[in-house]
Amino acid sequence: MSIRTPLCDLFDIEHPVLLAPMAGVSGGALAAAVSNAGGLGLIGGGYGDADWLTRELDAAGDARIGVGFVTWSLARQPHLLDLALDRAPAALMLSFGNFQPFIANIGAGETKLIVQVQTLEQAREAVDAGVDAIVAQGTEAGGHGGARATLPFVPAVVDIAQDIPVIAAGGVADGRGLAAALALGAAGVLCGTGFFASNESLASFNAKRDALRASGDNTERSSVFDMARGLDWPDGWNLRTMRNSFTRQWSSDIEGLRQNLPEEQARFEAARNLDDTDIAPVIVGEAADFVRVIEPAQDTLHRMVTQAKDQLQRISRLVAPHSEG
Amino acid sequence: MSIRTPLCDLFDIEHPVLLAPMAGVSGGALAAAVSNAGGLGLIGGGYGDADWLTRELDAAGDARIGVGFVTWSLARQPHLLDLALDRAPAALMLSFGNFQPFIANIGAGETKLIVQVQTLEQAREAVDAGVDAIVAQGTEAGGHGGARATLPFVPAVVDIAQDIPVIAAGGVADGRGLAAALALGAAGVLCGTGFFASNESLASFNAKRDALRASGDNTERSSVFDMARGLDWPDGWNLRTMRNSFTRQWSSDIEGLRQNLPEEQARFEAARNLDDTDIAPVIVGEAADFVRVIEPAQDTLHRMVTQAKDQLQRISRLVAPHSEG
Repeated sequence: MSIRTPLCDLFDIEHPVLLAPMAGVSGGALAAAVSNAGGLGLIGGGYGDADWLTRELDAAGDARIGVGFVTWSLARQPHLLDLALDRAPAALMLSFGNFQPFIANIGAGETKLIVQVQTLEQAREAVDAGVDAIVAQGTEAGGHGGARATLPFVPAVVDIAQDIPVIAAGGVADGRGLAAALALGAAGVLCGTGFFASNESLASFNAKRDALRASGDNTERSSVFDMARGLDWPDGWNLRTMRNSFTRQWSSDIEGLRQNLPEEQARFEAARNLDDTDIAPVIVGEAADFVRVIEPAQDTLHRMVTQAKDQLQRISRLVAPHSEG
Repeated sequence: MSIRTPLCDLFDIEHPVLLAPMAGVSGGALAAAVSNAGGLGLIGGGYGDADWLTRELDAAGDARIGVGFVTWSLARQPHLLDLALDRAPAALMLSFGNFQPFIANIGAGETKLIVQVQTLEQAREAVDAGVDAIVAQGTEAGGHGGARATLPFVPAVVDIAQDIPVIAAGGVADGRGLAAALALGAAGVLCGTGFFASNESLASFNAKRDALRASGDNTERSSVFDMARGLDWPDGWNLRTMRNSFTRQWSSDIEGLRQNLPEEQARFEAARNLDDTDIAPVIVGEAADFVRVIEPAQDTLHRMVTQAKDQLQRISRLVAPHSEG
């Protein structure tokens, strides 16, 4: 049995589940694993390392995958888009910034354009532009994101999207989240945190270990790691990570971090090289509560779909034919 | 047709929908309207005005309603609990603070104890205390709340709650939200924003007018109104409202507000008296996108339930008996 939605038709996939293009984590092996299991894996193009992207596109082999980019970063290195489009990916996903300059280029081939939004205003722009699918991302997502929460944001985007399939992102890491997304009117889900600790993930050893112990209670959004990494993120988005020593020291004192930046950047870089996750970030979202095992991504995906089907059948039985009222 | 869950059995109600005890908004008329429509209405006990509470309990007539209190405020005026319990309400809901001192008193009668939580640690305390139901409240809720988002928070609480029914709050104002909550494993929902602009709501004229135009994009959490009202809220909770001139001026400059407090409190009080919602708060959540008409609460509730049933039947048909994969 499977769950069929318009997203399955759009991408010719069996399960309406996409791998989020987590920068540095969603490489070719993970994207291929999700695609080969019946979903659609997106490689995380991140901040534009052409060598990394080429290597990971190669690593995906002949799996049908997509690629996601940070839009404002891609605008500084537009040649990376050609590098991706040359492989004729199933989908190109743009997040965080003005996607308009890239539409014509992407629309020329078979590649579908997915735009991720964090506000209704952005959703309206995507609808007006005629994109192929819209990811409505809630603030509970790991990594970069905005302020709206998935549960009320997704149906508000659905109301705007007309016939464009809406994909729910943020907080979905098991079958209950997938079932809920469908109940909200989404055509499927985009999952990062749920695959963060998979065998095929490029997350570091200690980051995966920490994710297994993480709780959604212990994540927060801040700009401290972007500042430490020297990433010039525009207003409106920041990064959800697990709390650690670095966030506890600086997330309420961003000005203090700025004033100590050279020392703190050096300390941060050293920690990254040592995989010291008390300083380096573990980039997972509130759905970390559902990440409890390191396993092949295929197992995670299939368990999610099976659980979603069970939930859909269970809740459909709650509707009683005759009211007692 | 109706939707039956264990919450219906617990409270002997037809629909698994509770009215949130919005302080100063959920009075006796609104609570009675929700109860008479087949849900359970909770009067908002707020910060403990005995005269107000007595009047609103009277206004509910013989409807079977409940009462909600701000726990840390109730601790300062515990006699209010007796005032409520004397009416033998169907439920007593405690939110925001240590509920332990009140358990024995509430447990003595027929009144069910509902505890609202914003973290998994609080959920564990409620489970250990053997409360009758747990409200898992997401940050998208209007009014006071915490940092977790409803979609990933509810199933994490369900995993802890064992046999205690979990009620989803935050972001639910239509049938899609109700269906999603059930998909997440909740036994029902608690709705504030969805009833804020109802005929029976005690919200002011301009607050209701603004709610009809509001978008979830234009709400935010801050402490500015608590400071302006002289309410000494503990750390960990703040207030989601629509943005207005007052939040734009002070939400990023809480220290500035503190330094100008006497003048700003006077300005704020004057605005409240004039129903000037450019300064006084309109306390709705991200689900404001779904509030588009002033109508009897009964109509809102019945539309929500009907839409939820439609969604449950629609998504149950997405499960295809034979996979094409």
